[in-house]
Amino acid sequence: MLHIEFTTDLGARVTVDVETADKLLDVQRQYGRLGWTSGDIPTGGYQFPLDNEPDFDWTLIGARKWTSPEGEDLIIHKGHAYRRRELEAVDSRKMKLPAAVKYSRGAKSTDPEHVREKSDGEFEYVTLAIFRGGKRQERYAVPGGRAQGQPAPQGPRPAAPRPTPPAARPARTEEETPF
Amino acid sequence: MLHIEFTTDLGARVTVDVETADKLLDVQRQYGRLGWTSGDIPTGGYQFPLDNEPDFDWTLIGARKWTSPEGEDLIIHKGHAYRRRELEAVDSRKMKLPAAVKYSRGAKSTDPEHVREKSDGEFEYVTLAIFRGGKRQERYAVPGGRAQGQPAPQGPRPAAPRPTPPAARPARTEEETPF
Amino acid sequence: MLHIEFTTDLGARVTVDVETADKLLDVQRQYGRLGWTSGDIPTGGYQFPLDNEPDFDWTLIGARKWTSPEGEDLIIHKGHAYRRRELEAVDSRKMKLPAAVKYSRGAKSTDPEHVREKSDGEFEYVTLAIFRGGKRQERYAVPGGRAQGQPAPQGPRPAAPRPTPPAARPARTEEETPF
Amino acid sequence: MLHIEFTTDLGARVTVDVETADKLLDVQRQYGRLGWTSGDIPTGGYQFPLDNEPDFDWTLIGARKWTSPEGEDLIIHKGHAYRRRELEAVDSRKMKLPAAVKYSRGAKSTDPEHVREKSDGEFEYVTLAIFRGGKRQERYAVPGGRAQGQPAPQGPRPAAPRPTPPAARPARTEEETPF
Amino acid sequence: MLHIEFTTDLGARVTVDVETADKLLDVQRQYGRLGWTSGDIPTGGYQFPLDNEPDFDWTLIGARKWTSPEGEDLIIHKGHAYRRRELEAVDSRKMKLPAAVKYSRGAKSTDPEHVREKSDGEFEYVTLAIFRGGKRQERYAVPGGRAQGQPAPQGPRPAAPRPTPPAARPARTEEETPF
Repeated sequence: MLHIEFTTDLGARVTVDVETADKLLDVQRQYGRLGWTSGDIPTGGYQFPLDNEPDFDWTLIGARKWTSPEGEDLIIHKGHAYRRRELEAVDSRKMKLPAAVKYSRGAKSTDPEHVREKSDGEFEYVTLAIFRGGKRQERYAVPGGRAQGQPAPQGPRPAAPRPTPPAARPARTEEETPF
Repeated sequence: MLHIEFTTDLGARVTVDVETADKLLDVQRQYGRLGWTSGDIPTGGYQFPLDNEPDFDWTLIGARKWTSPEGEDLIIHKGHAYRRRELEAVDSRKMKLPAAVKYSRGAKSTDPEHVREKSDGEFEYVTLAIFRGGKRQERYAVPGGRAQGQPAPQGPRPAAPRPTPPAARPARTEEETPF
Repeated sequence: MLHIEFTTDLGARVTVDVETADKLLDVQRQYGRLGWTSGDIPTGGYQFPLDNEPDFDWTLIGARKWTSPEGEDLIIHKGHAYRRRELEAVDSRKMKLPAAVKYSRGAKSTDPEHVREKSDGEFEYVTLAIFRGGKRQERYAVPGGRAQGQPAPQGPRPAAPRPTPPAARPARTEEETPF
Repeated sequence: MLHIEFTTDLGARVTVDVETADKLLDVQRQYGRLGWTSGDIPTGGYQFPLDNEPDFDWTLIGARKWTSPEGEDLIIHKGHAYRRRELEAVDSRKMKLPAAVKYSRGAKSTDPEHVREKSDGEFEYVTLAIFRGGKRQERYAVPGGRAQGQPAPQGPRPAAPRPTPPAARPARTEEETPF
Repeated sequence: MLHIEFTTDLGARVTVDVETADKLLDVQRQYGRLGWTSGDIPTGGYQFPLDNEPDFDWTLIGARKWTSPEGEDLIIHKGHAYRRRELEAVDSRKMKLPAAVKYSRGAKSTDPEHVREKSDGEFEYVTLAIFRGGKRQERYAVPGGRAQGQPAPQGPRPAAPRPTPPAARPARTEEETPF
């Protein structure tokens, strides 16, 4: 028997019994659909393989996709809206980094120090998840995925030059966080 | 089987077994009526849809309404008194924010840094809950509500100009916190 | 079934099963008598109704009365000695506060920032409990109380002028903390 | 049924079921012998009666005695070595303190602020336990003690003048922490 | 019955029931292979005997060996890559330290203060584990080890002069953290 601890959409701490280890991800999907989360966002954000990005099952971490009135796809997690950013590969003498997709938001005054990351200038942001390198893990994908007729959400692969850094964008979206 | 962790009115940590997931909110109401809470107030306060504000069931988060000797409706949560404030919609070039109702109190010297929010001037406050946007969720309402004859507490909808900011008000009420 | 988490007199974390909710306070009394505590002291101290002060059952929070060699009644909680202080009612234009009884001690260098309260001058103190306003709750009283022949410890009700502030007293007592 | 939470010698968080309350100390001894601990060191260190010092059962808190190559008896707790220090009684106009025995070590750069205690000068130290005053509790002693032929470790009782303060000693021992 | 708390590879908090104490390490190996960890890295890093270093079973703490494209053996733990460093014995008038092997990485901006250790200059690092002194514990070794034909990974014993301090190396590797 296993037991998984959640923070519910009402902020309550609830533990759910799970019969066997292979049913754990199902339980995480079931309650994640309600916005329940288990554990904290790891320091620096969740790390997933890049190849899991197109059809990642956000319910696994209690998050969901939301399309803003302006038509932008955002990820909602615990009332915060995270924006998708593509980071191109870096291959300089000093650093070698594979391409990545990052979901982040501007920091708010109530965010604790250890989740804030510095960007250019004064801007600080908080990362929900970063998809980089690694080997695709089928169990992270939306179950049934393409088979059920829904086209896989294939954002353009990060290959273009590194997009405008967060610092150049207003923190506007974060203030419009839907419920 | 589920298990929900509470902090009792005596500050004790008590877990209660819950048979099935659909009984969870009933258990939260039952013990919330005693002032028991589960989990911490989320950073920035609980977020609920605006349309849940008039008949929100405060027992869900271990809080209750209390009318002060001056006739003001306050929300009591863990010995603190929170005041209702209406925030009008903002629609400027820089920001777009739907109308909201916020329950907040002045910060005290013993409040940890991460719950304090800055206002105009030196004033700092702490938010219990903010009702903004979203879609009404029936399960957050007082059960039976209007059907049982009690008129829904319908405060005026936030449409008027943004009320006097907290900074302009004395922190007086917070000092009168009833038990 | 309920489960209550204690920190034992040896600092160990122990959970005790409780058959039904109405037996919870009995279990808290039983283990509180050994100095076991559940949860942390709430920020600003426990809040109880003033009318519970004379026969409050300190075992409910793992504390006990102790008479110092000088004949002063102190409350011992987790190895710290708290002194009883009466605060008179305040009724000025700025503030309206009912009379109260407060149990506090001088802060020590190892006390975390968020439990320290400022007094006049440089003096900082830590509050265990404050009895103010509210309505007497019978369940907080020593069971059987006066019935068992022990006269209720009736300190003089706080009506006299606010006593000498803590700043004017040496932190001496705290250093004599008995085990 | 009771449940005690341990941090194992590998840093894992493990809960052990205990049939009845009177078996709790046995379970603490059994796992403490493996270096498992339950809960954190209380602020300012564990407090025990002075008369428990000669045959205190260190396994109760997951610690053990260790004799250094130089022949000094140290207490090992979670990989740190604590040195025994005798504090003589203080009886001045300002303070009245019974004699005590203290187990402490020099602070390390990774020790959190709230466990560091200031000494003379810049030196900071961390206290594991202090034995002072109180009434001997038989249940804290090594079971069977002298009966099993092992002479009780009777350090000289603290009566001599207060020994050289920690500040005057190099932090050398702490760096030699054995595993 | 025992219960061990894990943080899964998805950051979820999951407790697993364990029949008897002697099966605990097996369960830690089984789930550690998936990257699940229990508890936090102890302050200053895990401490193990030096003689356990060559065939230490990293799955016990949810870590694994990974060979970088440049052929360097790194230890991956929760998405961070730790580099092996040999520390020679110190035998000066001021300090006596046996040889050790340390696994550490450069600190990142999101690392909390209490895990950062200072090195020469401005460089700060974080230690996962240090192998020093002590007596080999068979239960920490890869089960079956050499018997199964896999040569024990015998790095050169730390005897040479203390290697280039971390400060002299770029923090490059940490940025290439594989998933």
